[in-house]
Amino acid sequence: MEKVYRYNEIASGIAAQIRDGILRSGDKLPSVRMLCKEYAVGMNTAKRVFLELEAQSLVEAKPQSGFFVSNRRVERLPLPAVSKPSLIANHHEPSELSTRVYSSIGRGDLTLFSIGVPSGSLLPLAKLKKEILYATRALKEGGTEYEPLQGNVKLRRMVAVRSLGWGGNLHEDDLITTAGGVNALSFCLMALGKPGDTVAIESPCYPGILQLVISLGLKVLELPTHPVTGIEIDALRKVVSKIDICLLIPNFNTPLGSCMPDAHKKEVVQLLAASNIPLIEDDIYGDLYFGTQRPRCCKSFDTEGNVLWCSAVSKTLAPGYRVGWVAPGKYKEKLLKLKLVHALASTSVIHEAVGNFLKTGRYDRHLHQLRRTLQHNYQHFIDAVTEYFPEGTKTTRPQGGLAIWIEFNKEVDAVKLYELAMKQKISIAPGPMFTLQDQYQNCIRLCIGLPWSDELKFKLKQLGNLAKMM
Amino acid sequence: MEKVYRYNEIASGIAAQIRDGILRSGDKLPSVRMLCKEYAVGMNTAKRVFLELEAQSLVEAKPQSGFFVSNRRVERLPLPAVSKPSLIANHHEPSELSTRVYSSIGRGDLTLFSIGVPSGSLLPLAKLKKEILYATRALKEGGTEYEPLQGNVKLRRMVAVRSLGWGGNLHEDDLITTAGGVNALSFCLMALGKPGDTVAIESPCYPGILQLVISLGLKVLELPTHPVTGIEIDALRKVVSKIDICLLIPNFNTPLGSCMPDAHKKEVVQLLAASNIPLIEDDIYGDLYFGTQRPRCCKSFDTEGNVLWCSAVSKTLAPGYRVGWVAPGKYKEKLLKLKLVHALASTSVIHEAVGNFLKTGRYDRHLHQLRRTLQHNYQHFIDAVTEYFPEGTKTTRPQGGLAIWIEFNKEVDAVKLYELAMKQKISIAPGPMFTLQDQYQNCIRLCIGLPWSDELKFKLKQLGNLAKMM
Repeated sequence: MEKVYRYNEIASGIAAQIRDGILRSGDKLPSVRMLCKEYAVGMNTAKRVFLELEAQSLVEAKPQSGFFVSNRRVERLPLPAVSKPSLIANHHEPSELSTRVYSSIGRGDLTLFSIGVPSGSLLPLAKLKKEILYATRALKEGGTEYEPLQGNVKLRRMVAVRSLGWGGNLHEDDLITTAGGVNALSFCLMALGKPGDTVAIESPCYPGILQLVISLGLKVLELPTHPVTGIEIDALRKVVSKIDICLLIPNFNTPLGSCMPDAHKKEVVQLLAASNIPLIEDDIYGDLYFGTQRPRCCKSFDTEGNVLWCSAVSKTLAPGYRVGWVAPGKYKEKLLKLKLVHALASTSVIHEAVGNFLKTGRYDRHLHQLRRTLQHNYQHFIDAVTEYFPEGTKTTRPQGGLAIWIEFNKEVDAVKLYELAMKQKISIAPGPMFTLQDQYQNCIRLCIGLPWSDELKFKLKQLGNLAKMM
Repeated sequence: MEKVYRYNEIASGIAAQIRDGILRSGDKLPSVRMLCKEYAVGMNTAKRVFLELEAQSLVEAKPQSGFFVSNRRVERLPLPAVSKPSLIANHHEPSELSTRVYSSIGRGDLTLFSIGVPSGSLLPLAKLKKEILYATRALKEGGTEYEPLQGNVKLRRMVAVRSLGWGGNLHEDDLITTAGGVNALSFCLMALGKPGDTVAIESPCYPGILQLVISLGLKVLELPTHPVTGIEIDALRKVVSKIDICLLIPNFNTPLGSCMPDAHKKEVVQLLAASNIPLIEDDIYGDLYFGTQRPRCCKSFDTEGNVLWCSAVSKTLAPGYRVGWVAPGKYKEKLLKLKLVHALASTSVIHEAVGNFLKTGRYDRHLHQLRRTLQHNYQHFIDAVTEYFPEGTKTTRPQGGLAIWIEFNKEVDAVKLYELAMKQKISIAPGPMFTLQDQYQNCIRLCIGLPWSDELKFKLKQLGNLAKMM
C-alpha cells in the first residue's frame, strides 16, 4: 500500500511524546547529529523530521541553539468526561436542529465549521475529472448500462486489497457497493431491524444515524462513550440483553473522534457475537489517521460473519459522488436483495472512476497528503481554541478524523451560541444535535476539514468571544 | 417541446387505421397526388408519408400501381383477455424466478428478450460522454460537493418544463431527484406505507414492484387489468375500502403495455382522492409513445396533491446513470426527509449531465429517434410472433413502451419454455414473475428494446419452434 517515509515515522513518534506531555513546552530537542545516531538515519532524513515538526507548529527553531518544543503547548485543555446518557431506549423524533444546521450546506457566505466533510480545496479535483472521462471511455456503452448487482468489480477488488491495511482479509465477493455511506448503513439497518428493535450506538452520535434509526421505526439506546477509547464496554455488557443491533463508528467517530483500542474492539466483537447481535461498523473515517498506523477495524476480529463493515469515499475523496460499500458477512444475501429491490444498481460511471482512482495508487497518494493537512489543521484548531475559548473549555484530542468536540462551562448554551454565531456568518454544530436525550447543551462540534487560514483563525476568535460573553 | 412533422402525423393516422383493421391487407392506398389534396400538403410531404409507412413494413409499393397495405397484416393475433387475479391481499415472498431471470443482465452471450431497457446501441453514447465531461467542468469543485437536498436545479427545472407535454404544470420546487426510478418508488412506499398496509397494483405487474412492496412489509392486491386500457375501475371501486395505497404504471406499463384513456385516469384520481388513498404514478415509459401524442398523466388530473408522480431516464437514456425524480404532491416534506436520511444526496456530476442534456434539447431529439426505432421494432416483433409462434397465440398491441405480452395456449408452460430457451442462449421473462398468484403460466414478456436484425428474427423463430413443440 502506501509508502511511509522514515522521517515521518520518527516525527510522529516525537509528536506523540509532545502531545502526551513527555516532552514539555520549552524542552530542547536532540540535535540533528544526535537524531542521526539515535535513529540510524542520514542528515537529510533528520532535517526533514524537524521540518515536519515545525510545519505542525509543535517545535520552534531558535537561532544558534537548535529546536525547542513550542511555547504554545504550555496550555493543554482537559478532556471532556465520559458521556453519561441514561441507558433507556428512545424512539422519539430527533429535534429539527440538525435539519436546520445541515440546510447550510453549500452556502458560500458562511464559515461552515458545522459540516463534516473535507473542503473541495483539499481534494484532487483535476485528477478526478480525468478519471471520470476515462471511465466513460472504458466502460461498455459508456456506462449507460447497469452494473452487476454487487457493484463495480474494480472498486470491490481494490477495497478488498486495501482491507489488509486494517487487519482485514476481504475478497471482492465479500463486498457490495452502495450509493454512499448513509445508503450502506440504511441497507444494513433495513436488513437487520424490524420495527420496535433497539439499536445501541455511541453517545454523542452522528445525527444522520439517529435520524436513520428512528426513521425505520427502530429505537435508539445511547451508550456511555469515552472521548479517547470509545464506548464503555461494561455499559454495553449491561444492556446486551436489551438490544438487537449495535452500530458503532469505532475509528475516529464523529463528533468525539474516539478510536477504540484493539483490545476493546476484540472484546466488543466477541461480546456481541456471543449474543448473536450483529455489529454494523461504520469505518468512514478509518483512513484519516494522523499517526503512521491505520487503526484496525472490528471486522478484523470477526470470525462469525457477524460484523457488517461499511465505508465510503465521502469523507476522503468526494462527498457528491455517492460511492460507498459494505462487507455484510453472513448477511450478504439479505443485503444483496435489498440493493436489488431498492436501488437496482449504483451509478456505473462514477463507481468505475473511483475504482480506477484506487487501482492506480492515486487514492493512497491523495490520502497521504490529506492526512497531513488534517493533522496540521487539527493542531491549528486546538491552538486557536486554547487561545481564544473561555476558561473551563474542554476539548477532545482525536488522533484522526474530521472533528473536534468542545465542552464549555455549563453557562454556555450551545444552541444560543449557534444562533449568535450564525449572525456573524459562522455555522457550528451544537451538542443537542448528537443525542435524543437532554444532554450536551454546553457542547459543540467543530469540523477541521476547512483549509487553515488567518480568516479561519479570526472566525474561531469571534466564536470564542461569543462564548466568553455568555 | 419537440417538433412533430406533418408527414409523421399523417403516417401515424394511416398506421392506426391499418392496425385497427379499417384498412386491410391488400387494400390500395390513395396516390401521392390524392394525399396532397386530402391533407393539403406538398408532394414531398406526401412522399415521406409513404416512405415512413414502408419503413414500418405497413405498406408495400407495387411497380406502376402505387402503395398497398402489406400482406403480412392479414393475420392479426387476438388480444389476451382482461386479467382475473383474485382480489385478495398477498404478502408472501415473490418467487425466486425473477432473481434468476435478472441475473442474466449484462451477459453478452445471451439474446436478452427478458430485460426491459433499450439496448446501448439505441442510445446517444458519444453525446452523453461529452455531457458528463462538461458537467465535471461546470460544477463547483468538479461535482465532488453535495448537491442541494432536493436535487440538481437544472434537472428539476427541465422536468418541470417538460410536464407541460403531459398536461402537468409542475414547478422545479415540486420535484425531488432520486437515484433512479426504483429509488423514487421505494421512497414513496416508505413514506406512505406502514407494515401490514395494502398496495393495489396492476396485474400482471413489474416484478420489481412486487418485490419492493413485499420487502417493506406491505401487502399486494392485484387488480384485473385490460391489455389496452389498464386497470378495471369497477374492481378498484370494489376494493377501495381495503387498500391504503395505489401504485400504477398508467402509460405503457410493463408487461402489458396498456395505456389508460384520459377519462379512466381522471376517474381513478378522483376515486382515490375521495378515499384519501395516495396514488403513486410510475410514468417511466410515458415518453415512449409510438403515435404523435404524448399521453397525459394521472398527475395532470390531481387537484389535491394526492398523486406522487415518479419517473426516470432509465428506460429512455441511461439505465446505469441512476437518475430519477418524484413530484410527491402534498407528501413532499415526508419524501424530502426520507431522502435526507437514507440517501443524503444524488450523484452530482451525473445529475448535472442529464439536466443539461434535457436543457439543450438533445434529449428530445434523442427521444424522437428512439420512439421511431421502438415503433419499428414493435412491428418487426409482432410480425415475427405472428409468423413463427404456435396457433392460438395472443399478443398485446401496445402503443408505446418497451414490451409485448404473449399469451400462449394452455399447453405452453412459460417457465419450461424459459429453461429450454436458455439452452439456446435466449432469455425471456416468464409470466409467473409478474404476479404473486398462480396465473400467467402460459404467458411471457418480450422486450422490444434490442436493435432489430435477422439474428433477432431467427431467435424469435427458434423460440416459436420451442413453444410449438410443447
